[in-house]
Amino acid sequence: MSKGGKSDQEEGEENMAAWLVGLNTLKIQPFKLPPLGPHDVRVGMKAVGICGSDVHFFKALRLADYVVKEPMVIGHECAGIIEETGSEVKDLVPGDRVALEAGIGCWGCDFCKEGRYNICPDMKFFGLPPFHGSLARQIVHPAYLCFKLPDNVSLEEGALCEPLSVAVHACRRGNISPETNVLVMGAGPIGLVTLLAARAFGAPRIVTVDVDGNRLSIAKELGADGVFKVSTNMQDIPKEVETICNVMGAKVDVSFDCAGLSKTMSTALSVTRAGGKVCLVGLGHNEMTVPLTTAAAREVDVIGVFRYKNTWPLCIELLRSGKIDVKPLITHRFGFSQKEIEEAFETSAGGGNAIKVMFNL
Amino acid sequence: MSKGGKSDQEEGEENMAAWLVGLNTLKIQPFKLPPLGPHDVRVGMKAVGICGSDVHFFKALRLADYVVKEPMVIGHECAGIIEETGSEVKDLVPGDRVALEAGIGCWGCDFCKEGRYNICPDMKFFGLPPFHGSLARQIVHPAYLCFKLPDNVSLEEGALCEPLSVAVHACRRGNISPETNVLVMGAGPIGLVTLLAARAFGAPRIVTVDVDGNRLSIAKELGADGVFKVSTNMQDIPKEVETICNVMGAKVDVSFDCAGLSKTMSTALSVTRAGGKVCLVGLGHNEMTVPLTTAAAREVDVIGVFRYKNTWPLCIELLRSGKIDVKPLITHRFGFSQKEIEEAFETSAGGGNAIKVMFNL
Amino acid sequence: MSKGGKSDQEEGEENMAAWLVGLNTLKIQPFKLPPLGPHDVRVGMKAVGICGSDVHFFKALRLADYVVKEPMVIGHECAGIIEETGSEVKDLVPGDRVALEAGIGCWGCDFCKEGRYNICPDMKFFGLPPFHGSLARQIVHPAYLCFKLPDNVSLEEGALCEPLSVAVHACRRGNISPETNVLVMGAGPIGLVTLLAARAFGAPRIVTVDVDGNRLSIAKELGADGVFKVSTNMQDIPKEVETICNVMGAKVDVSFDCAGLSKTMSTALSVTRAGGKVCLVGLGHNEMTVPLTTAAAREVDVIGVFRYKNTWPLCIELLRSGKIDVKPLITHRFGFSQKEIEEAFETSAGGGNAIKVMFNL
Amino acid sequence: MSKGGKSDQEEGEENMAAWLVGLNTLKIQPFKLPPLGPHDVRVGMKAVGICGSDVHFFKALRLADYVVKEPMVIGHECAGIIEETGSEVKDLVPGDRVALEAGIGCWGCDFCKEGRYNICPDMKFFGLPPFHGSLARQIVHPAYLCFKLPDNVSLEEGALCEPLSVAVHACRRGNISPETNVLVMGAGPIGLVTLLAARAFGAPRIVTVDVDGNRLSIAKELGADGVFKVSTNMQDIPKEVETICNVMGAKVDVSFDCAGLSKTMSTALSVTRAGGKVCLVGLGHNEMTVPLTTAAAREVDVIGVFRYKNTWPLCIELLRSGKIDVKPLITHRFGFSQKEIEEAFETSAGGGNAIKVMFNL
Repeated sequence: MSKGGKSDQEEGEENMAAWLVGLNTLKIQPFKLPPLGPHDVRVGMKAVGICGSDVHFFKALRLADYVVKEPMVIGHECAGIIEETGSEVKDLVPGDRVALEAGIGCWGCDFCKEGRYNICPDMKFFGLPPFHGSLARQIVHPAYLCFKLPDNVSLEEGALCEPLSVAVHACRRGNISPETNVLVMGAGPIGLVTLLAARAFGAPRIVTVDVDGNRLSIAKELGADGVFKVSTNMQDIPKEVETICNVMGAKVDVSFDCAGLSKTMSTALSVTRAGGKVCLVGLGHNEMTVPLTTAAAREVDVIGVFRYKNTWPLCIELLRSGKIDVKPLITHRFGFSQKEIEEAFETSAGGGNAIKVMFNL
Repeated sequence: MSKGGKSDQEEGEENMAAWLVGLNTLKIQPFKLPPLGPHDVRVGMKAVGICGSDVHFFKALRLADYVVKEPMVIGHECAGIIEETGSEVKDLVPGDRVALEAGIGCWGCDFCKEGRYNICPDMKFFGLPPFHGSLARQIVHPAYLCFKLPDNVSLEEGALCEPLSVAVHACRRGNISPETNVLVMGAGPIGLVTLLAARAFGAPRIVTVDVDGNRLSIAKELGADGVFKVSTNMQDIPKEVETICNVMGAKVDVSFDCAGLSKTMSTALSVTRAGGKVCLVGLGHNEMTVPLTTAAAREVDVIGVFRYKNTWPLCIELLRSGKIDVKPLITHRFGFSQKEIEEAFETSAGGGNAIKVMFNL
Repeated sequence: MSKGGKSDQEEGEENMAAWLVGLNTLKIQPFKLPPLGPHDVRVGMKAVGICGSDVHFFKALRLADYVVKEPMVIGHECAGIIEETGSEVKDLVPGDRVALEAGIGCWGCDFCKEGRYNICPDMKFFGLPPFHGSLARQIVHPAYLCFKLPDNVSLEEGALCEPLSVAVHACRRGNISPETNVLVMGAGPIGLVTLLAARAFGAPRIVTVDVDGNRLSIAKELGADGVFKVSTNMQDIPKEVETICNVMGAKVDVSFDCAGLSKTMSTALSVTRAGGKVCLVGLGHNEMTVPLTTAAAREVDVIGVFRYKNTWPLCIELLRSGKIDVKPLITHRFGFSQKEIEEAFETSAGGGNAIKVMFNL
Repeated sequence: MSKGGKSDQEEGEENMAAWLVGLNTLKIQPFKLPPLGPHDVRVGMKAVGICGSDVHFFKALRLADYVVKEPMVIGHECAGIIEETGSEVKDLVPGDRVALEAGIGCWGCDFCKEGRYNICPDMKFFGLPPFHGSLARQIVHPAYLCFKLPDNVSLEEGALCEPLSVAVHACRRGNISPETNVLVMGAGPIGLVTLLAARAFGAPRIVTVDVDGNRLSIAKELGADGVFKVSTNMQDIPKEVETICNVMGAKVDVSFDCAGLSKTMSTALSVTRAGGKVCLVGLGHNEMTVPLTTAAAREVDVIGVFRYKNTWPLCIELLRSGKIDVKPLITHRFGFSQKEIEEAFETSAGGGNAIKVMFNL
């Protein structure tokens, strides 16, 4: 028997969600929840952030090989309050404030069994077609992917555990420690959380570069030891490499390319010291033209970084202890109304001043 | 006091070496040896192989950023017999048959101190300008870089410890084990020793691809489980990826790109399973256009492989135990005479049937 | 809907199993199977081996903290033929010959999620109280833990994937490669499969020691490069360490203690080279008196090895390719009858000539 | 030609050092320096700390297998000012303030070549017989082992890079990160620097235990999240394990045993979570009686920690940036006079209130 008060649904009110129904078109429409399994919980969603990939789907109905063929509920950065728990759920009770991990592995494939469930080919991920997302009044989700928030961590911060998880996974893959000087290419949301995570992992010096001066000032406020504004011109790479070395004042041990463009990757490969690592986090250009050979000849490795695994507990601990403060990333807030949802997505798409756009439900 | 019979030099005969004096021009000329230090040995060279990089210098007087500005003794794949030992040398005596590791680290930089001396920026490497090579009657070299050969390992096999070391280092970097299905891009000398080394490291299935059918038959003879002839056309990658998967009959866990071209690397990145590794061994194109992002999104890592470190003892053991037989790689042999040296290099450069060209001194 | 012919049960014949009902007492009695879940299969068991831990329970009704409080079906090394598959099972059909992995992880704890399900505290393991084992005519098991056997791998070999898995996991933990000289302490079943696995992982030299000359001759037949008969006397350690070094003729890089006694562990810690590893596989003495400090001062690490994870596919491949032959380990065979089961366990307990005792059902 | 002003020696003044000449007997006597090699520097020593091992030699003329057979200059934790540099020294000039790494590897053995020079069997280590130490007015040392101190790091702090290096190496071996809850057994100098280093490596929770309440209050002041006073009674382990878990309020991921006794190691093995690590840092009891088997059955690994390698640059950076403050460890200071040296050693040996005793020369 499930535990918890009656849901809105049971009382006749319909669950509503933000459906992506066409190019640049979102509609708040009823979203029928699946039955609550014994290991599931029903969560009343309270905070949902907009991610760049959400905007991609909004603007193009596709991202890489993923195509939105039918109307789909959008969103995947989220936190809420437990409303009902399945019969076998032991560690959560209604009223618990939780952050939700966005993807459900299959637990049958080699990757899941080896603990690399982030690259499970059968993962069901919020808002990645054909799976519905979490920008909804209510969601049903496996309990083991819902992580309790301490009192001093807000639901908005809980929602930001999702992008922060990408950064934490990147820092793990890059083996960041007090011995690692870090370069972050890009000062968008992922670049900024990577900066925060690298600091929490002990990186003694972190330099952020971007093409946007405004974003760089935010990086500086968030603790970058140095920032540097780069161009989009490939020809500038050699002199920019030199400047980055000067701004760093030390060897670059690990670079995070949070943009994923030929230029950012070429810069990262050139500036990283022999034996170092370039972590490719941002998925920008599908194909890149890069000096891979000269990097390989210095044993600079390129480390692929995709999503995350087992990151929520660490993210929550880093927020709880104050080692990381993600609140300054939230630049805009919107309510969950038909009037506001498209405006929110346009704001996020507009670039410039918006870093993280957050819905409060 | 040094130990050993009088050298030829002491008796008035001059030491002779093969000097690269201009484009396509080698001259056997006197080569004055440096004084024998207390930790050095003098080696009478007996077998010296020609490497692709030697041919590069012969044909272009340069390789990557290395330029031959003054006449230079060429060669670095070598084995010989100890003629004299420095006063502090304990483990070697005149008459010992030894294979020579080609590069001398500085032992003062961070890389040397951390055991990654292969990427020491101050390495002195045989035949890499401005350092002289080892295609000479006699050579002075640090004793700790001279490794005794067992009775059942010939001097020619000893010389081939050098290219085999590249393969062993690549297999270590790729973490090859009985759990690793391997793809080798390229069936030139390095591709072939990589095949041999991967087998010795336990790889259950190894597939080799090349554009040259003759080389592929050698790969088959050397034990490739499957071979496949590819084109040089980028457009063919998707269908070649499919065929490689079929020939492999299993997932590709690790690919070794022993060519280092946009096409080989693109193929390797596409065909390697999620979570796998592509080891970039061959240094072909300086810049590459490759689908790095889609590979990163499957957490396929690109591992740079440069030369080797601490490989000679393992190579010698693999040869001694018969786990690896490099003798079939030697397709041509030449004597050390003015008449033969350029012919040997032209043979090596000719491609096609020549795999490894060996001098017997 | 499940797929497969009617089970014996459905036809009214009862499923029978070997129940441990008291000290030294096994009874073949009816064993009601649980309902077949959608992801389960029903297996007709054909080959079940006896493990030392089974014998422990038979002789003492306990092992470490595990106590047999109620009658329990015994056994966990097993293979059989699929009789029925649950509605969601896709990769198996009735008639498939399969080897069964013995433990079911919870997939909810940190260990399972990180891929170390072997140390999941909630694992349900065949024949470990309070969970029933697999010495039964029929068993219901999750499909994902049943691995198809190739035509050239027998069901008996399939059953031996279980002990072989311990060895494979140990070799992974010990990072065995063509660069690792190996010492195996103990030539019982686990010691012998460790020898076989270490060879398959490329170990160039393997020496086995035991107190039993007969077992050592089996080790020699299975390919040990050297064997050495040790005493049970702690005082003999120094001179035995010396002899082991001589028999090895090389440094001991990794030792596997498959006995787990103060003496074997002390010997292993003393004989392993600086920077090497001692893998503790056998769980003999609970407490040990060992020279841990002098080992630590040479940075010899002690690696705990418990069961296995993700090993069946590799074991099956090693058997299929002939890299490992476990058949010589089977010294005794018994039928599945009340008359034979206790005799089989007594044979296994008798030590001496019995290595692996196998039931054919 | 060497660079630098004339040495005291050259001017006729003799270099003086603290010689261990018998049990509990130190004499300040002349100490003739070796000639300055081209890669050496002469250092005017300014700060030398007393280590527990120094006290051992003072009190027993031996430590483990190391026996003081002839008078020996003592001391190895040191920093000073460059007075003269060898002809090939490029990065140091007279007047530079430097911390000295204490051991000189052979750079010829496998360990040195693989970057594990800390376990080089031919290491020449300050004050480890038969090699002289550094409690002297002047010392000649290889330049590559002398590390420049930034302006805001004092010579005393420079001397403490030596014990801090042990802690840094332990944290590296234990892979301490923001994900690692740490237990430190022992609040002597090594336990305290381990606490500081674990914090700098990001450990979120650190608990220190000791038998001495005074030392525990220092641990608390240095930032331990919890401290707990244990007994020396083996019987108390189970209840102490329980209390440690409560004080930690989380699983113990890694334990550092900085005492190295049967009791501390038994406690550490019992309290560390499955899959965790126990790093054995302190070299107390040669033989230990410990529950190694039950730890191995949870895959708790025992990691040997011996000295350090490549740690000085990181230590100096941690001191420079203020991430670690070692100054509170210095509880006593002495001058370099015959009157004071034995008193200093007796103070250090006295236990209780003395943590680090420092000479100012």
